[in-house]
Amino acid sequence: MIPTPYLLFLGDAPDALAAKVAQGIRDWRPEIAVGQVRLPGCQADMGLPDMTLDEAKAAGAKTVVVGVANRGGRMADNWIAFLSDALAAGFDVASGLHTMLRDQPALAEAAARAGQELHDVRVPTVQYPIADGQKRTGRRCLAVGTDCSIGKMYTAMAMDREMQARGLKSTMRATGQTGILVTGAGVPLDAVVADFMAGAVEWLTPDNDADHWDHIEGQGSLFHVSYSGVTMALIHGGQPDALILCHEPTRTHMRGLPHYSLPTLEALRDTALPLARLANPACKVVGVAVNTKALSDDEAQTCVKEIEARMGLPTVDPVRHGAGRLVDALVDPHGSSRSSEEARKGR
Amino acid sequence: MIPTPYLLFLGDAPDALAAKVAQGIRDWRPEIAVGQVRLPGCQADMGLPDMTLDEAKAAGAKTVVVGVANRGGRMADNWIAFLSDALAAGFDVASGLHTMLRDQPALAEAAARAGQELHDVRVPTVQYPIADGQKRTGRRCLAVGTDCSIGKMYTAMAMDREMQARGLKSTMRATGQTGILVTGAGVPLDAVVADFMAGAVEWLTPDNDADHWDHIEGQGSLFHVSYSGVTMALIHGGQPDALILCHEPTRTHMRGLPHYSLPTLEALRDTALPLARLANPACKVVGVAVNTKALSDDEAQTCVKEIEARMGLPTVDPVRHGAGRLVDALVDPHGSSRSSEEARKGR
Repeated sequence: MIPTPYLLFLGDAPDALAAKVAQGIRDWRPEIAVGQVRLPGCQADMGLPDMTLDEAKAAGAKTVVVGVANRGGRMADNWIAFLSDALAAGFDVASGLHTMLRDQPALAEAAARAGQELHDVRVPTVQYPIADGQKRTGRRCLAVGTDCSIGKMYTAMAMDREMQARGLKSTMRATGQTGILVTGAGVPLDAVVADFMAGAVEWLTPDNDADHWDHIEGQGSLFHVSYSGVTMALIHGGQPDALILCHEPTRTHMRGLPHYSLPTLEALRDTALPLARLANPACKVVGVAVNTKALSDDEAQTCVKEIEARMGLPTVDPVRHGAGRLVDALVDPHGSSRSSEEARKGR
Repeated sequence: MIPTPYLLFLGDAPDALAAKVAQGIRDWRPEIAVGQVRLPGCQADMGLPDMTLDEAKAAGAKTVVVGVANRGGRMADNWIAFLSDALAAGFDVASGLHTMLRDQPALAEAAARAGQELHDVRVPTVQYPIADGQKRTGRRCLAVGTDCSIGKMYTAMAMDREMQARGLKSTMRATGQTGILVTGAGVPLDAVVADFMAGAVEWLTPDNDADHWDHIEGQGSLFHVSYSGVTMALIHGGQPDALILCHEPTRTHMRGLPHYSLPTLEALRDTALPLARLANPACKVVGVAVNTKALSDDEAQTCVKEIEARMGLPTVDPVRHGAGRLVDALVDPHGSSRSSEEARKGR
């Protein structure tokens, strides 16, 4: 277990999205985030107190969490200098980067000298099986997106919390570094060896009660050429009963790929659903989750109404509006929230 | 480099397909395969002389190649005993299993004692990049299958050899253990960490002359739930200009998944082509390769004619009939081998 509370290290994050690990912890477990550290040039801000190591120590922080995900997961030299100081000051350090803390000689040495621990949460600790595609009991919901970093984890977290609040059987199944740091368990799917990806997802979402829902954290996008294989493994290993389509209406191009435009929600539905039905013929698209963070309240309302009318599916921003209608669509699919158009189409 | 020639170890392969690594070497580099070793219960046969280690030594063999791929890549105890003997007798040992030779203490010890080398070809030796999806120069052909182990590598090998024989610019790009053992280079794609799969394929098929074709060895199948993510990474990382559809007409269910039936060639085309066009809008399906090994000559002829008429695409068994018509479809797409129906459809 990683000692809490955390001091969130934002490094020199070029934008807010690069610090999405810190943001996820801030948003879903604020009680364990006491402060933040920003290096010169940092463009992210969690709205937490900026702290020195001494101040964080006084505030009770036990672990410095690398809350920023660089493209490709490399660790910069000025990060190593700061993290070495943190170890010397008596903090543990946790990271979900591909480049492991333990593989940085300076950090390994500083940790050994200080008697502190390095926690690499993106290292698979299980020998995952090859997927066997056998039908499992219990039910599963997967969020798929028109792009990466678009709100899939927030959607799953919000739906899980809503089900828990209603006393329904539900488990959040983390597949990425933030989800693992927030929930304390999961599979670091993008670090799993290719042949075992789908098997890792099967392992993560085993047989369960017939009325239990796993909310599987999505990864990548079928339309993002860098990571689409990971998304595919989630769809086939997760054998979801329900898909939620995730979208961000102001995004102008695929994340990190300026020469690729985003697909429509219709294209996402028509691509993801047939692929999902290969592993689970009963799979349905049950709702749309829109990340409206960049919009005003009025704009957000207009946006989700337009999409709901167009797609014939319950559409909300689960952070802004709550995930109630998405959960209704899962557990009460014939309820009043379902439009007649949607019922006619059988989606 | 792995010393040749090879002695092919078939272990206790439960069927011929399990020994497909050995078969690939036997079929494409027979000059480097001097004999075979079969344990009790082995159901595979390369048609090579069965040899003891002493006999193989006398025949000049330098390396014992583990030519059998177990599901999940585990190494059995009776294999380790034989391979330890081989090391003691002065052979190197090469393997493409996920379970590494070097991680078996008995083999590591035997190799050190004998002064021989262990060659794990399924270990990525390169720090592959994250895919960037940038358009590359040169052209690429990818074989995709209705199932795994269906002839994708043979199709690529046959097309590459045909192009070489015609004096055209062509390179075979191996992505699996057999291809790497046959060609001497490549990416062991199913052992690459998930986030870097598509980047590894981009790395493998870099910018090239405008009239140069890479023949990319396919892996898995979009319809095989255990491995579909690997196939997806090949489609998006490879950004193919041309797809070849591969099929085996007597297969009754997906390899290793008795509860999953095979898709039709039409379903494969309609699933793979839109996904491929995301990375390369100009991608076309140019032909069908049928593995007719289980059929008589007459049956094979009937089968490929039926598929050709149905699909409107040049259809051959590249091993039985040669890959000439598939290469024609690549380099002479408006030639006489293209049916009018196909031209009308623009495929």
